[in-house]
Amino acid sequence: LSVKRPAPVLPLVTVQRASATPLYRQLREGYRAAIVERRLRPGQRLPSTRALAAELGISRIPVLQAFQQLLAEGYFESRVGAGTFVASALPQDARAGSGTGTPEPTRPGRRPVSRRSGLLPPPRVAPWLAGAGAFRMNETALEHFPFATWGRLVSRHARHPRRDQLAYGDPMGSLPFREALASYLRSARGVRCEAEQVMVVSGSQQALELTSRVLLEPGSAVWVEEPGYGGARDVLTMAGARLVPVPVDGEGLDVQAGAALFDRVRAVYVTPSHQYPLGMTMTASRRLQLLDWARRRGAWVIEDDYDSEYRYGSQPVASLQGLDRDARVVYIGTFSKVLFPALRVGYVVLPPDLVPRFAAVREAMDICPPALYQAALTDFLGDGHFARHVRKMRELYGGRRAALADALAHGLGGAPELLGDEAGLHLTLALPRGGDRQVAMRAAARGLLAMPLSSCYLGPATRQGLVLGFGGTPLDSIVPAVQRLSPLLAR
Amino acid sequence: LSVKRPAPVLPLVTVQRASATPLYRQLREGYRAAIVERRLRPGQRLPSTRALAAELGISRIPVLQAFQQLLAEGYFESRVGAGTFVASALPQDARAGSGTGTPEPTRPGRRPVSRRSGLLPPPRVAPWLAGAGAFRMNETALEHFPFATWGRLVSRHARHPRRDQLAYGDPMGSLPFREALASYLRSARGVRCEAEQVMVVSGSQQALELTSRVLLEPGSAVWVEEPGYGGARDVLTMAGARLVPVPVDGEGLDVQAGAALFDRVRAVYVTPSHQYPLGMTMTASRRLQLLDWARRRGAWVIEDDYDSEYRYGSQPVASLQGLDRDARVVYIGTFSKVLFPALRVGYVVLPPDLVPRFAAVREAMDICPPALYQAALTDFLGDGHFARHVRKMRELYGGRRAALADALAHGLGGAPELLGDEAGLHLTLALPRGGDRQVAMRAAARGLLAMPLSSCYLGPATRQGLVLGFGGTPLDSIVPAVQRLSPLLAR
Repeated sequence: LSVKRPAPVLPLVTVQRASATPLYRQLREGYRAAIVERRLRPGQRLPSTRALAAELGISRIPVLQAFQQLLAEGYFESRVGAGTFVASALPQDARAGSGTGTPEPTRPGRRPVSRRSGLLPPPRVAPWLAGAGAFRMNETALEHFPFATWGRLVSRHARHPRRDQLAYGDPMGSLPFREALASYLRSARGVRCEAEQVMVVSGSQQALELTSRVLLEPGSAVWVEEPGYGGARDVLTMAGARLVPVPVDGEGLDVQAGAALFDRVRAVYVTPSHQYPLGMTMTASRRLQLLDWARRRGAWVIEDDYDSEYRYGSQPVASLQGLDRDARVVYIGTFSKVLFPALRVGYVVLPPDLVPRFAAVREAMDICPPALYQAALTDFLGDGHFARHVRKMRELYGGRRAALADALAHGLGGAPELLGDEAGLHLTLALPRGGDRQVAMRAAARGLLAMPLSSCYLGPATRQGLVLGFGGTPLDSIVPAVQRLSPLLAR
Repeated sequence: LSVKRPAPVLPLVTVQRASATPLYRQLREGYRAAIVERRLRPGQRLPSTRALAAELGISRIPVLQAFQQLLAEGYFESRVGAGTFVASALPQDARAGSGTGTPEPTRPGRRPVSRRSGLLPPPRVAPWLAGAGAFRMNETALEHFPFATWGRLVSRHARHPRRDQLAYGDPMGSLPFREALASYLRSARGVRCEAEQVMVVSGSQQALELTSRVLLEPGSAVWVEEPGYGGARDVLTMAGARLVPVPVDGEGLDVQAGAALFDRVRAVYVTPSHQYPLGMTMTASRRLQLLDWARRRGAWVIEDDYDSEYRYGSQPVASLQGLDRDARVVYIGTFSKVLFPALRVGYVVLPPDLVPRFAAVREAMDICPPALYQAALTDFLGDGHFARHVRKMRELYGGRRAALADALAHGLGGAPELLGDEAGLHLTLALPRGGDRQVAMRAAARGLLAMPLSSCYLGPATRQGLVLGFGGTPLDSIVPAVQRLSPLLAR
């Protein structure tokens, strides 16, 4: 049915012999463009490769290569005994093109996207989080990480990997690493677990994401701490959960207040070792009360133990999970704070009956974690480097915290109210007169990245203050930074 | 209100001085257990640290440490001038315990999990995928990977990381790596893109997961190729999508058949460069037809370009994305096949208007990709190692494919029907008489991991055959493996 058109006498495509682009590719691109732009029409006859090569003054080899490929891609078709033609079945109204550059929609058309992808605003950076500066949250003393040791372990596994470290792995993670993690968590964190319950993830964020997928329906209600951690609220929001902000008092999450607010929740998200951002430790009685409530309610407890390695006044507090007799706690931890964030390694300890579902969801989500870091971390834990590093950093951060508390006491005059235990990588300076966002904005302009406490509330903020990270702020920067901060607080 | 109870004369806890567990921890654990197990009651008075140390015959220091910690955790409370007491507010019916070991639910209670987490069966391994053996899919020639070079690049970045490679990164991935990827994709794959559109992910699975989250509502209909790739169907299923299997013919996905079956779809998932599993290339006319349909329908096109670096009869086929004038194609690629799977690095090229949503969803899901591999891969691409490796492997795999095709022609007698272009890491041997699962089961018993073609169908299989991977099967294993396979096919 296609109209036979004569082969053009002059080639429609030209080639530049001096170009860095190989001749065959120039030809291929030229023909593709000519076809897509309708300069060559379906069914149109093409010159023979011999004739084209002669016409272009080039060897026949690149012409054959180009034709072979255009045939493979279906732009050309070959008819026995008749030669080569532009494929006859190109649609009449094709609007496609070729070349490089960002395509622009020719007309908008329908571009439907999911409702849930719009539940969160596009990533934006609050002024108190932009750039580098003293007191920035989520920073660690990277310069004290033992990169020589770490590099040696990573190099060894990168150069001489075991074959099973190269293929697709277990969606739960590598077993030797999970054994090392289970052993660490049992002894250092009082977590009751076997390696079979431990899943390796890319950090606490992925742990929360997986947990939400397995435990929550869209519309499930979840208790979150008020004030609390925005990253957890984001992932729960995107899972379609209804967040119930439950106030935190001096003992941690107020279970009775939560029960009075809204009791029919599927899960509760807590940071019992070091409440984010207020910094207190959930008391034993609250822990027992929470677990008891969860058992009666049939709710899950999501324990985020993000920085509990760092306590300066006492030994680390044991996990909530270790008290749980009903396998209701999903325990989440990360190496982002104890090693460094770009590592992207964390872990989640699962109630045994949830393991198959977590494994199935994880496999569909991203198959398995990368192997190299798991291998290197297994050695890092097993050879004692991790324990040494934590001990060293505990002393270092303890010094930074003390220096910050001292500087605030001296700089502000009187006794500033510092919230939180001597733990973690941040403390909160209460601002009884409020205005924490304004102070944080002015501080940001001076290179001080203090997070306003009010930004950690889902509802109206009942307290205001500045959350000051000291993990990435060296000792000798602390006094000058507080000196820059003090005048802003005096107003 | 709490009843004052006298301090016990004998300590409720004992310590073992010879134990490897430090004394303070023995004390802490002992008191925690005694409180949780109700041997010590709320409000009960504790002995003084001096008395307890004397009673136990140990130094007072570990006793002070243990008490300090039990106070911090809220198990103990201190009353000014009166001494130390078991915290008064422990709930009466607490059932919690301490110690190690896997907790068993004391009674099942409600343990609600999400419906979507049950949409996929727990990971299970079909007989034709279990263990190691010839023809296993998704394997690559790991022994030919340049680990010395790779290890050198990885070591350099692990030992001497840039500071910005250690902190939390951009949810899109590191910009230098995305620039290297964009440059590679423009020149080698005909993808029209700028670095700003490229997102680094952990592989094609995570790319599909993200794409589903951003583009699909629960219940959205999606065309998938029939037969097609199970991994993609899994992630779409878990996203709540309704899968519409659209038959694939010799030209690729049959757009007209799809439109006749069910036209109101939100997206279509295709493998146009090398259809999985049948191996043909989607023709140019079909590509234009698909893009035209997508534009008119307002549907998205998800292009999975999983192994297109490997074509042996011709140069790689340009991407479908490169023909798209309407920014409707989400282009997905991975390093799992060209480098190795455990790397967990892939990429997705986004329509520019979708970038903010993808970034927001990715940030909530797992914040950002790990830094080290991105840094090492930037060098690996930029220094030409990648291109060299692909060239070398193309020759190697081309040889394996030819040897397999030859061995099948000789071993089976006559002309076996081999489906698919000379490309990728697998070919499909058609079994006109069917019974492919039975053959695959018998083959698995002989250490041959041939995937039955019928297992790639969502509906009833219209073709049967064996999908034979040759990526991980060395040249000298191919003839013996075909000799073991042949008798099974003769029945």
